[in-house]
Amino acid sequence: MSTKIPVAVLAATGSVGQRFVQLLDRHPLFEVVALTASDRTTGQKYGQACHWILPGDMPGWAAEMTLLPTEAASAATPLAFSALPAEAALEIEPEFARAGTLVCSNASAYRNEPDVPILLPEVNPDQAAILEAQRRRRGWTGGIVTNSNCTSTGMTVALKALQDAFGLRRVFAVSMQALSGAGYPGVSALDIVDNVIPWIRGEEEKVEWEPRKMLGSLRGEEIVPADFRISAHTNRVAVVDGHMVCLSIELANPATPEEAARVLAEYQAPEAARDLPSAPRPVIVVRREPDRPQPRLDRMTGNGMATVVGRVRPDPLFDIKMVVFSHNTIRGAAGGSIYNAELLARLKVIGR
Amino acid sequence: MSTKIPVAVLAATGSVGQRFVQLLDRHPLFEVVALTASDRTTGQKYGQACHWILPGDMPGWAAEMTLLPTEAASAATPLAFSALPAEAALEIEPEFARAGTLVCSNASAYRNEPDVPILLPEVNPDQAAILEAQRRRRGWTGGIVTNSNCTSTGMTVALKALQDAFGLRRVFAVSMQALSGAGYPGVSALDIVDNVIPWIRGEEEKVEWEPRKMLGSLRGEEIVPADFRISAHTNRVAVVDGHMVCLSIELANPATPEEAARVLAEYQAPEAARDLPSAPRPVIVVRREPDRPQPRLDRMTGNGMATVVGRVRPDPLFDIKMVVFSHNTIRGAAGGSIYNAELLARLKVIGR
Amino acid sequence: MSTKIPVAVLAATGSVGQRFVQLLDRHPLFEVVALTASDRTTGQKYGQACHWILPGDMPGWAAEMTLLPTEAASAATPLAFSALPAEAALEIEPEFARAGTLVCSNASAYRNEPDVPILLPEVNPDQAAILEAQRRRRGWTGGIVTNSNCTSTGMTVALKALQDAFGLRRVFAVSMQALSGAGYPGVSALDIVDNVIPWIRGEEEKVEWEPRKMLGSLRGEEIVPADFRISAHTNRVAVVDGHMVCLSIELANPATPEEAARVLAEYQAPEAARDLPSAPRPVIVVRREPDRPQPRLDRMTGNGMATVVGRVRPDPLFDIKMVVFSHNTIRGAAGGSIYNAELLARLKVIGR
Amino acid sequence: MSTKIPVAVLAATGSVGQRFVQLLDRHPLFEVVALTASDRTTGQKYGQACHWILPGDMPGWAAEMTLLPTEAASAATPLAFSALPAEAALEIEPEFARAGTLVCSNASAYRNEPDVPILLPEVNPDQAAILEAQRRRRGWTGGIVTNSNCTSTGMTVALKALQDAFGLRRVFAVSMQALSGAGYPGVSALDIVDNVIPWIRGEEEKVEWEPRKMLGSLRGEEIVPADFRISAHTNRVAVVDGHMVCLSIELANPATPEEAARVLAEYQAPEAARDLPSAPRPVIVVRREPDRPQPRLDRMTGNGMATVVGRVRPDPLFDIKMVVFSHNTIRGAAGGSIYNAELLARLKVIGR
Repeated sequence: MSTKIPVAVLAATGSVGQRFVQLLDRHPLFEVVALTASDRTTGQKYGQACHWILPGDMPGWAAEMTLLPTEAASAATPLAFSALPAEAALEIEPEFARAGTLVCSNASAYRNEPDVPILLPEVNPDQAAILEAQRRRRGWTGGIVTNSNCTSTGMTVALKALQDAFGLRRVFAVSMQALSGAGYPGVSALDIVDNVIPWIRGEEEKVEWEPRKMLGSLRGEEIVPADFRISAHTNRVAVVDGHMVCLSIELANPATPEEAARVLAEYQAPEAARDLPSAPRPVIVVRREPDRPQPRLDRMTGNGMATVVGRVRPDPLFDIKMVVFSHNTIRGAAGGSIYNAELLARLKVIGR
Repeated sequence: MSTKIPVAVLAATGSVGQRFVQLLDRHPLFEVVALTASDRTTGQKYGQACHWILPGDMPGWAAEMTLLPTEAASAATPLAFSALPAEAALEIEPEFARAGTLVCSNASAYRNEPDVPILLPEVNPDQAAILEAQRRRRGWTGGIVTNSNCTSTGMTVALKALQDAFGLRRVFAVSMQALSGAGYPGVSALDIVDNVIPWIRGEEEKVEWEPRKMLGSLRGEEIVPADFRISAHTNRVAVVDGHMVCLSIELANPATPEEAARVLAEYQAPEAARDLPSAPRPVIVVRREPDRPQPRLDRMTGNGMATVVGRVRPDPLFDIKMVVFSHNTIRGAAGGSIYNAELLARLKVIGR
Repeated sequence: MSTKIPVAVLAATGSVGQRFVQLLDRHPLFEVVALTASDRTTGQKYGQACHWILPGDMPGWAAEMTLLPTEAASAATPLAFSALPAEAALEIEPEFARAGTLVCSNASAYRNEPDVPILLPEVNPDQAAILEAQRRRRGWTGGIVTNSNCTSTGMTVALKALQDAFGLRRVFAVSMQALSGAGYPGVSALDIVDNVIPWIRGEEEKVEWEPRKMLGSLRGEEIVPADFRISAHTNRVAVVDGHMVCLSIELANPATPEEAARVLAEYQAPEAARDLPSAPRPVIVVRREPDRPQPRLDRMTGNGMATVVGRVRPDPLFDIKMVVFSHNTIRGAAGGSIYNAELLARLKVIGR
Repeated sequence: MSTKIPVAVLAATGSVGQRFVQLLDRHPLFEVVALTASDRTTGQKYGQACHWILPGDMPGWAAEMTLLPTEAASAATPLAFSALPAEAALEIEPEFARAGTLVCSNASAYRNEPDVPILLPEVNPDQAAILEAQRRRRGWTGGIVTNSNCTSTGMTVALKALQDAFGLRRVFAVSMQALSGAGYPGVSALDIVDNVIPWIRGEEEKVEWEPRKMLGSLRGEEIVPADFRISAHTNRVAVVDGHMVCLSIELANPATPEEAARVLAEYQAPEAARDLPSAPRPVIVVRREPDRPQPRLDRMTGNGMATVVGRVRPDPLFDIKMVVFSHNTIRGAAGGSIYNAELLARLKVIGR
């Protein structure tokens, strides 16, 4: 008999939903028992309803599962991974949380709430403790834990290492983001072949704020954002997977590029997050070639869970320039949520 | 009998050389009388030796011309357009200058010299006056006038409008640059399909320095760079033509995005540069859509000579964020050199 | 007072509708007096409702027009260009035809009807005569004239020249088609970056049949398809505009590649179609380089109206191999319809 | 002590050479003891001299190896994998063969020789027997075994299954080939972004001939090509890895698409080739979706060693239409050579 934790994937047919199904195949801790979808396809087999867009075949067990409606009544597992769009998440995720499900969510709907953590196990596992206050306040027996916007993820991991060592003052961030970040069908091919789109709706606001919350601190029953500022430009480019971010960073205590590179390369996740199945080892891979990271070559570093940093060099205005890269649908979405759930399982806060 | 000024195109078979040939077809002031190439192909017809990579056919007159060696002896016209690589330019351009040719050069070889202007007619036509000192000092009867690196061009035009109105302090610039900027064959397709390369050799140094020289001032016999600083990250993306630059700008005197956008849209070239054949009208096109400029849609604005600005908005660290776009092989290379020559013809400094 | 023929563009906001608006700007014979759209946007200005995706700005006159519903009642012009999807066309185009409008349609809805011509002025202007029978039979005072599927267009022009000279027996056709052929948003970027899709719904059937109708003959009141056979494979590739087709052709009377190339290069449109504003001159451009045609370089040949043929060479199974290229949204869609209308205006069958 | 067969990789720094190094990492039968390169880089470490362009890091053992000159004197192993260009192979491979090395070659130099097999273990392992005659005739103690051109590989596997079941008469083949097939740097990005190149030097000739030799039979001391004919068009598209071929096939004994699909899906490699480490199982994957195979999704099927077939359907001129896909640098190059060597090791013809 399986002792794995039974989980549901909410909105399993979309591009992030598919990544969940792929990454949960043969997962050591979790067993998918429910796949949900929008009304249009419930009742169909996942194999029929889902236009699978990932390399490799859909796992056989998933193909055979019957899609359920996205309702707490039908899919009340102790743990659920949510790939719901923000609007739907706003209503549906609390329903699950109330019914006792701990929801690990990719949606932005609740990221702004001071009692909902944006969790990044390598960075802020301590913020998981806010769950207790969340449950008490809201009368939930489950809860909502989010992961950050896919662009914020990699840069926050890198900023954490620098924050610990030197402190942060100001950060310029310019992203070149992959197509899969916009879902499927997402971006029209006519908009991106031989082109760049210098705008992604709502993205700059998220990138300017989410890292500050993740790098903030728990004070009483609230998470207080860290005291530094970010300016972001976000762009879409013709890349399938993997977000690249150019960073210029002003530190509180100046450091040389060599010192910064060393601190990045040696960064260790906090104890609680270290030996989990999805934990990348090392957390940050620092590349020394002049022209790396590159999406096509570096996206699967650490099974797509590592943060890759390159081109650490002096900045004529601030202190350090560098390029940060991470896989947007693995580290920045489905893989990140699963890593969060692994942390929460270890902390024994699932399924009370 | 033609009263046009006879010109040579040096290194006419490469990607910038081809743009020169294309843009000089039926030019009202200039007539191509010599096309030069490397030794390997001299003596052949241009039509045979040149693998034409631009849409539209090679002009018939060019196809029939016999390629000359790139030597002052064989191609001594009053005016020459140079598409030479930097190393070759270092030696060859002064030869022509000594022989009485005014060389309008795309090469970076002489841009750093304090008596060689980096000319941008909309921005600093006054710096053409340094030619006199250059000739006297160096004993040349011709001279060398350069145009800037293709990434610096558009951003310098935009910065000029803001400098005049508000003064400049600090600028962050992150580029996403087109393939044609690397010449032909240039970038390997394997390096850019489904990819971004976050590095272009020597480019960041140029972008951090050239705009300051162009926006500087003439003091005695030298051009003194403007007193503001730039930090640049330069990236290569899978776009055929057109460089995009994300800018965050700290002004000396703060302005709102609306004020900045107005100043940009109303910017006029100095009198001397206004009614020239290649002059874009308006100089700067400010787009109001949230997602423009875009390379595929905006590259031919003003026949590829206009600077296109979009997304003018507040910056949380500095004052203004915006995106600047211009065509790298037209405005940023061949078209820019021709525009420079038109200015120099008007100023009557060609062919003494 | 304008003596131009007033025209409507049906479904003006989509990708083909935009091409109509662009190509009808300053047209010598036609003046756009009505732009129609789906209910969702009627009443709005075209400039607001339409997300313009073509390089260059939307014409000012179009931006200011108010979108009408696509109904004969509101847009009863003597001539209409239809960019309606097939299903909508099935119902709406006859309404217009009944009300006296001659509809030049891009839709496939009526192409199969024996009294509806698929018109290609360079190829079968004589088939326009079927309009009389169409009107009589159906009791229409207007009518419906279609242009072919965008992939069939170029290859039919080339096949016509060979049919006239040598007769046709069997044709293998494998297409590599552009993204704009699928409309906007059309193909998802995730489906085509670093990819090829070897299937386009319904396309192979059209390519195997339409050329035979266009190359057929008028017998009594019906168009009888030509007696040769086609096998087609159709593929989508990451190209913005322009469909390429590899052809292997078995002729009735064998010819050498040289003879075939000469016949193609010398092909002339029938008299009636020769001097129309949109007529390409020459009809077919035969390229002699080993590696042409290519979409990026050849798409605008003859303002996008020419058929470009290259690589004419022997075929080990049939007689001749070659590659045919034409612009799918100009020659193969909007431009083709306008060319048809120019022919019909000359034949004086518009607006009785 | 290792009992693996020591092998050399000739021309190890190029794109196929890198695949060899990657695929030989931890190979159960072979151990790389020599990496060779052109004179320019011999003496350097592989890790320094080689610009690694594959996702994932270069194996550590390879990075540390010192590059040898490509000479039999310095790299005389019983087995060598050759990624040499055709011209170099012409001279160098026989040197190795004479010195006792069995060369598994990707080069086309010797494919035409009647005593040199083009080996495809799933298809013609019996042709390995010609090695004996080759050695005797040429006085070699080693030998040369080639693998086919990367485009011929997948289609030949599929044709073999049909040949066995129904016999072959005529085949039309139109390829859409990946960039990696042209090596590195290979295709210029400017030639392929938003483009297709309808020509690959020398490729159509190979595709029209090599499958016939591989599907031919051993008669006495020569391989006699099979008696059917092929017409090929070859095209380059903007895909990183994986060649797609559209086929129309005339069979000797007609079959329905269903029968053909069954025969393809059930095809088994000859006994000798079945249980080798690189053998794909199944040999051919038949996909039933209307729009597969696709390069991005199907390239890694069977670790890149399987042949993927889709869209099996009737052909209006011949019998069957279908699309064949296989990975060009794995199945069609390095992986294919290694699979050949595994077969030769089993047949005990290495290292006499």
